[in-house]
Amino acid sequence: MRNLGSEEKGSMSGTAATAILKEEVDIVIPTIRNLEFLEMWRAFFEPYHLIIVQDGDPSKLIKVPQGFDYELYNRNDITRILGPKAHCISFKDSACRCFGFLLSKKKYIFTIDDDCFVAKDPSGKEINALEQHLKNLLSPSTPFFFNTLYDPFREGTDFVRGYPFSLREGVPTAASHGLWLNIPDYDAPTQLVKPLERNTRYVDAVMTIPKGTLFPMCGMNLAFNRELIGPAMYFGLMGDGQPIGRYDDMWAGWCMKVISDHLGWGVKTGLPYIWHSKASNPFVNLKKEYKGIYWQEELIPFFQSVSLPKECTTAQKCYIELSKQVRAKLGKVDEYFNKLADSMETWIEAWEELNPSGAPKSDALPNGSAK
Amino acid sequence: MRNLGSEEKGSMSGTAATAILKEEVDIVIPTIRNLEFLEMWRAFFEPYHLIIVQDGDPSKLIKVPQGFDYELYNRNDITRILGPKAHCISFKDSACRCFGFLLSKKKYIFTIDDDCFVAKDPSGKEINALEQHLKNLLSPSTPFFFNTLYDPFREGTDFVRGYPFSLREGVPTAASHGLWLNIPDYDAPTQLVKPLERNTRYVDAVMTIPKGTLFPMCGMNLAFNRELIGPAMYFGLMGDGQPIGRYDDMWAGWCMKVISDHLGWGVKTGLPYIWHSKASNPFVNLKKEYKGIYWQEELIPFFQSVSLPKECTTAQKCYIELSKQVRAKLGKVDEYFNKLADSMETWIEAWEELNPSGAPKSDALPNGSAK
Repeated sequence: MRNLGSEEKGSMSGTAATAILKEEVDIVIPTIRNLEFLEMWRAFFEPYHLIIVQDGDPSKLIKVPQGFDYELYNRNDITRILGPKAHCISFKDSACRCFGFLLSKKKYIFTIDDDCFVAKDPSGKEINALEQHLKNLLSPSTPFFFNTLYDPFREGTDFVRGYPFSLREGVPTAASHGLWLNIPDYDAPTQLVKPLERNTRYVDAVMTIPKGTLFPMCGMNLAFNRELIGPAMYFGLMGDGQPIGRYDDMWAGWCMKVISDHLGWGVKTGLPYIWHSKASNPFVNLKKEYKGIYWQEELIPFFQSVSLPKECTTAQKCYIELSKQVRAKLGKVDEYFNKLADSMETWIEAWEELNPSGAPKSDALPNGSAK
Repeated sequence: MRNLGSEEKGSMSGTAATAILKEEVDIVIPTIRNLEFLEMWRAFFEPYHLIIVQDGDPSKLIKVPQGFDYELYNRNDITRILGPKAHCISFKDSACRCFGFLLSKKKYIFTIDDDCFVAKDPSGKEINALEQHLKNLLSPSTPFFFNTLYDPFREGTDFVRGYPFSLREGVPTAASHGLWLNIPDYDAPTQLVKPLERNTRYVDAVMTIPKGTLFPMCGMNLAFNRELIGPAMYFGLMGDGQPIGRYDDMWAGWCMKVISDHLGWGVKTGLPYIWHSKASNPFVNLKKEYKGIYWQEELIPFFQSVSLPKECTTAQKCYIELSKQVRAKLGKVDEYFNKLADSMETWIEAWEELNPSGAPKSDALPNGSAK
């Protein structure tokens, strides 16, 4: 894990960090429904490798504009590559993005939805979201004590008076959760009640979400250290044939957070912003969400009280243990959670098959070897 | 407790809230060394009652400009009013401000240092810090789950997708911690290392510090609900005759936070900003702080593991219990903590004497009855 400790702070500019990491990053996109999306991001994404996971009908062709380095997977590819394990990847839902996490061999993943465009900061400058995510992932997190001036590793700020010196080294950062200008990420009831609300507030902050605190992780604009937390970034069973939708990223976020807390890693939220261009249909969303809205009332206390044993020293081991606790404690909420627990195990089996622990690191392997 | 729930959100403008609360607020200032201070705040403070607690030589006269409604206490007053209990109030240290908290009969306290001036927001508008604190205190807190768009009760924002509906009512807000532009609140070592660092970043956010998370509370720009958390806002023993300084607000913050967590109240940080005009002398600060810097390494684990029994249903009861745990667990760190534990008990005795629980509310009593 490469950390920019306080001594090195400021010594690596954003551009330098991005250049170094070019070969260590994959951008994962769950389908692309409009070409405008990639054109808007061209300046920022062209240097990187894209993994596109088509979420619907495999016979439909996704046209990727020239100049991008990409691999594209559809449902037929998922079935071919995973065989009997393919059932753990959602169909007709953006939850399928985690197939891209599975196939990548890179250290860092940035995942973004195709209705997220380049936002501008208050000075009018276009925001390089990926660069900010990498800054967040490369600098330590501070989950054990709250710093009132927010990210102490950012230029122009530091730990404030009263922050214990023993905690100032920080811990590795597992994930960076970015935000959205314009259309906020609201649930269907809030969308229905506030159809016109737009997020216009640019909050110039990055902060670590404290240890023991859960948050609603949105998959629209998200980056993570795949070597650390990749195995916990499973987006569950959503979409076609499933009783629930729009809880894929939430599920991944809760699992990922309790595992990061257990393993001593940090999770950040705040910058960078993207421009969320269009609100999804609140009536469709309500249908997808309604079971989640009441199941969630039992899921949150479950995740708040999850305890992982000391023997769970890797994200994989934690995730298998978590799947057992899901089956034992949430199976009684709905039969769906037994199926989900099975899929969580299948996901880890697939992860270990495609990412054998003794395998050489990303530099030595062609990426996306299956295609 | 008057809460502005989500239904009422936006129905009470800042000005209206401030007007209603005029009779429910005291501004407590630990000494005034320059007249410029009150002149700068005149437009915002003149409608309110001030309690000034002079921290040094009682023979020196503090001149308060005409037009302000105030009461002024010096060391002689403290001795006269508290008698044998006066030893719990620090001398020659801004920790003496808590004497003002004790004497006030108002529901809300705003306390500010005399080197804190009016800041401007990014649009150039002068910030009415007190008004923002009152907004923070009047709207609920959300300590049990993190909202990624920050304060969900603020205009233009809400709870995001995945935030449990059962937690959206929020809880009463006990305290509002404001921030500082210009001179950041750094400890002596950081001041020495970064003498030129200035805080220029205006982060347009208010957030609840999650339950179970400690933070470094600065007393420069702070407001709280005195009826809820007043008895825990004791600023300890600092200054003349004490082995430590500059940990008064930190101590109050840690005590106040664990008690708020136990009683189910929230603590917010973020807006409003004040303009912190001058850095204190880092060499003097180092002398005051150095014991705190290493004691703190034992204090934080102590506060992180404090558990208060169910019988502790008020801030007073919690505080007495906390004083016992301080004696039992920190007495071995240094004899100072036994003395501090004694003073914590004396403070509560003084609180109960001056604030008998059966006493009529603020409206019925002249404020600062002792003078």
